[in-house]
Amino acid sequence: MSSLSIREAQAGDLEAIIRLHEEDELGSHGDVWSDETRPAYEAAFAAIQKSPDNRLFVALDGDEIVGTFQLTFIPNLTGRGATRVKVESVKVRSARRSGGIGARMIAFAEDHARTHGASAMELTSNKTRKDAHRFYERLGFARSHEGFKKKL
Amino acid sequence: MSSLSIREAQAGDLEAIIRLHEEDELGSHGDVWSDETRPAYEAAFAAIQKSPDNRLFVALDGDEIVGTFQLTFIPNLTGRGATRVKVESVKVRSARRSGGIGARMIAFAEDHARTHGASAMELTSNKTRKDAHRFYERLGFARSHEGFKKKL
Repeated sequence: MSSLSIREAQAGDLEAIIRLHEEDELGSHGDVWSDETRPAYEAAFAAIQKSPDNRLFVALDGDEIVGTFQLTFIPNLTGRGATRVKVESVKVRSARRSGGIGARMIAFAEDHARTHGASAMELTSNKTRKDAHRFYERLGFARSHEGFKKKL
Repeated sequence: MSSLSIREAQAGDLEAIIRLHEEDELGSHGDVWSDETRPAYEAAFAAIQKSPDNRLFVALDGDEIVGTFQLTFIPNLTGRGATRVKVESVKVRSARRSGGIGARMIAFAEDHARTHGASAMELTSNKTRKDAHRFYERLGFARSHEGFKKKL
């Protein structure tokens, strides 16, 4: 773990990032890397790169991508105009979980958000992910809200 | 209610929007419109206007601002690169609640999100807002996630 580093994702990381999401059974997002799905991921990656409010990160152990997360800066009127940062699509390689990688990523995310003027951080986690809930509470997050989703 | 209209917010709407948030006791965001707080709101309004991913709306009954909400478009890799829209800072003037304004705003938000390429909509609501939870479930939202927040 001493060799863990975190940096912004590059185009060449895309397959490795999607492979992390592929491991996810609870999210049911149906993510899989293939010739068929690749163009959609490339388009989404380009949209994230283009957005001034979004940053996609990867965590590496040496050269291996072992985690990923996305930050979305949200300018907002409430809280006297407080900028919030939403953490999205947090994923750690399954074989490497419970090893501190997630905590390092969230600490990095908090530093990054604070440095760039945000005063609050938020995220949602599927109600079935009990381990993730304990993880976020341990890191000082308050489970204060209900999260609602609707397909359009 | 036949005269209800929804449009993007303009700079001249800012005080009326903050007055809606001022009525809010549960959110505890401490929002109040004054000479002291005005610059922070103006800066946040400018940041929302400048962001290509954010849109701030007001609902009007005739000339009176009776509601507001913000949409944040979030490009995302998961769900095969599905764009999501987060609904933020939904507020209806207290004297006008339970009159269908909120439902009209959310229907407008869904249309706007769909028209602009989003395939999912999401929001969080403080766990104390039981009425709001019933409202969103009635509109077809699934209460599938826990919402976490942390001050930075």
